[in-house]
Amino acid sequence: MDIQKYLQEKKRIMDSALDRYFPDPPEGEGEERFSGSLRKAIRHSLLNGGKRIRPILSIAAFEAVGGTGGRILPFACGLEMIHTYSLIHDDLPAMDNDDFRRGKPTCHKLFGEAIGILAGDGLLTEAFRLMTNRSSRDGLSTDPELILDIVHEIAQAAGISGMVGGQVADIESEGKEVDLPLLQYIHTHKTGALILASVRVGAKLGGASEEALRALTRYAERIGLAFQIADDILNVEGQATALGKRTGTDVSRGKATYPSLLGLQESKRRAAELVELAVAALEPYGPEVNPLRNIARFVIARES
Amino acid sequence: MDIQKYLQEKKRIMDSALDRYFPDPPEGEGEERFSGSLRKAIRHSLLNGGKRIRPILSIAAFEAVGGTGGRILPFACGLEMIHTYSLIHDDLPAMDNDDFRRGKPTCHKLFGEAIGILAGDGLLTEAFRLMTNRSSRDGLSTDPELILDIVHEIAQAAGISGMVGGQVADIESEGKEVDLPLLQYIHTHKTGALILASVRVGAKLGGASEEALRALTRYAERIGLAFQIADDILNVEGQATALGKRTGTDVSRGKATYPSLLGLQESKRRAAELVELAVAALEPYGPEVNPLRNIARFVIARES
Repeated sequence: MDIQKYLQEKKRIMDSALDRYFPDPPEGEGEERFSGSLRKAIRHSLLNGGKRIRPILSIAAFEAVGGTGGRILPFACGLEMIHTYSLIHDDLPAMDNDDFRRGKPTCHKLFGEAIGILAGDGLLTEAFRLMTNRSSRDGLSTDPELILDIVHEIAQAAGISGMVGGQVADIESEGKEVDLPLLQYIHTHKTGALILASVRVGAKLGGASEEALRALTRYAERIGLAFQIADDILNVEGQATALGKRTGTDVSRGKATYPSLLGLQESKRRAAELVELAVAALEPYGPEVNPLRNIARFVIARES
Repeated sequence: MDIQKYLQEKKRIMDSALDRYFPDPPEGEGEERFSGSLRKAIRHSLLNGGKRIRPILSIAAFEAVGGTGGRILPFACGLEMIHTYSLIHDDLPAMDNDDFRRGKPTCHKLFGEAIGILAGDGLLTEAFRLMTNRSSRDGLSTDPELILDIVHEIAQAAGISGMVGGQVADIESEGKEVDLPLLQYIHTHKTGALILASVRVGAKLGGASEEALRALTRYAERIGLAFQIADDILNVEGQATALGKRTGTDVSRGKATYPSLLGLQESKRRAAELVELAVAALEPYGPEVNPLRNIARFVIARES
């Protein structure tokens, strides 16, 4: 299969779904004019050329276990909205203080810090609104108990025992001596938890068997960590033009990373090994998991 | 009935439920040590002597329509967690830049701005985790479709068409000419939406009839606005010691308020009128709505 084409096609589906959910704010009339800048700020950050890795993983897992149709879209959008809110807040002056992302000014640089905070808050809240919205289920019957379970898993992955907890540990360890257990905690929580949830939620909604869910969970744990190691490596040797943001920032901030702890070569070896372990977890399955296999390899081959 | 005693009793139930959900972080061992400061920051803001008006309204509405037992607690806690996250973010330097709340340093003053942002993010996310958690339903059978509907209504009230939208309009109108429609938009969204949702969610979970839900909705719309007008009045003539925060800040920030637009006397008249209209909406009902009647009167009689 052509993985680039696959990723492009799914990205197009996601971009268009997100665009429908956050349309251009109407000018002039109606109460919505009072929050026009918020809606613009959200669109700026949400429709900004992201790779859509998390929702694509979700769709790929959904389809791998036999799921069909658009039932996955509200959850795929919700995952991307939660990811985007976390980027907006991470970029704030009190956090990583980044001016550029994907080659464009960050949300708070363009709209001010207050709107940056509120755009993140709004995206996080709207993600839960979308995922629990009856009409976004589109007449398709999905067991409401399963939806509650899925929303709960996403909240857990994004919350203080997941992504937010990882971000706290990351912020607090800047400039300090960091050992491998702490680095692993940061990575598995800050990035890994939401990637894991993306795969598992797609699989659950697609009707995965217990056994398939276990295999996909192992797959997701491994690519989650590989993805973050690859990110660390790109921060060292990536091209700022391809990334659309500054590189070398981890070193200048005294952030612990895989390259700083283990060296570049060993980090690359580990990332490659994790990708092979991820693919190995899918061994019992056929061509229906080819997208997942190829996404795993893409994770460490990407340039941005 | 003794409304002070009623409020104290319900507040005690809420304080204890929130304390159970966010226990003191364990020292030393386990992965939770990595996010210890986050858990401390959340406890600082959440268990800080709040009046618990929103969850108490929710419980009172739930019991008024015949609801019994603890089924309401996860949602009552979720509402208070969402309210608390909004206070933490409102207090940030980029927003209202407040140093004190309820007589204690605000979250970011004590724990730093990054942890303040993340404590808010964490509380908002954990609210949705708690409300969708199967085990917090405690073996009690509640229709999962109803829970999805309730969570959706809360997300809508807290999101960009609700509380976050109101906060944006509030921030952006500082120092500008504000007319009554805009002021009303700010109030009904920033404060009113979540108060309305609190009452409606309690009523829905308690099994309210269509007619009772309509009456309680009218009640809640009116006390929501009365509550905010009373807040505006307290900012002008309240005692900083009773409030535990600075007063007179609306004027110094050039914030539009009911007193600044209509004068103190007319504002008081409107608040009292709204309370009577709220009570009138409950006219067809008996003693089971006495707590709601008394809470409405408390809203404008309170000193903090």
